Amino acid sequence: MHSLDSTSVVQIGIIVKDVEKTASAYAKVFGIPKPAVVPIAGDNFANTNYRGRPSSAQGKGAFFDLGPVQIELIEPVAAPSTWEEFLRTHGEGIHHIAFKTQDMSAARGFLASRGMETIQQGGWDGGQYAYVDCSEQLGLILELLHSDK
Amino acid sequence: MHSLDSTSVVQIGIIVKDVEKTASAYAKVFGIPKPAVVPIAGDNFANTNYRGRPSSAQGKGAFFDLGPVQIELIEPVAAPSTWEEFLRTHGEGIHHIAFKTQDMSAARGFLASRGMETIQQGGWDGGQYAYVDCSEQLGLILELLHSDK
Repeated sequence: MHSLDSTSVVQIGIIVKDVEKTASAYAKVFGIPKPAVVPIAGDNFANTNYRGRPSSAQGKGAFFDLGPVQIELIEPVAAPSTWEEFLRTHGEGIHHIAFKTQDMSAARGFLASRGMETIQQGGWDGGQYAYVDCSEQLGLILELLHSDK
Repeated sequence: MHSLDSTSVVQIGIIVKDVEKTASAYAKVFGIPKPAVVPIAGDNFANTNYRGRPSSAQGKGAFFDLGPVQIELIEPVAAPSTWEEFLRTHGEGIHHIAFKTQDMSAARGFLASRGMETIQQGGWDGGQYAYVDCSEQLGLILELLHSDK
């Protein structure tokens, strides 16, 4: 892989202290329904790994489709995780932007070969994700998403 | 206005220290051409106001169209500005997400009535922008964009 295989932003992830409260505010500001708050990670498919070690990281999430881009609100629950680390060190704020990849291993390898290392990875029933620390190179954390379907 | 008049994210703004360097990194990671670096604000149309006072804020910018969303890299130059303040207090990172509005005054008024105040506003030859501090309510700075066309 000589560059990422997608150039289309699919998601913006925002770390918040209280997902119920912030999801209500988004619903009011944009005049859209408040989605259900759902668990993130913590299930049988999670297999979360954070900075090289298995982690029982969990969050509570709410997802809004704002045009072509999904806004994901994440309240960190069980740590350690990049979500908890971000809230502790930055406070609330925009944590990542996400891109799809057809080949998670090649995408992670391509970024790692340029000094951008995966800091957290895991899965769900249907796919895998990886957060890659691109803060020095791109000024942000990039999330790679791979769907098994 | 009872809610914002757009629910579609059009831009993600990222504050960086060196826009030339970071723009080169984006071009390589995504396999796309590096755009020209252009001045932001500082022209006859700018009329920048920062926290209630006229400001000679300027930046250097680079714009990438990544799917339906534009990535705007901003290197703060002349201060004061929300860009310089963000870099000084947060370091490099994702500064804002932007939405279009048909009625800048009504959109700013709607947000202000709910405690979300404009921290910087200005224009260009063809439109106006306002950065609204929604950090308490939405966990971020929201940018409103209005095109005169």
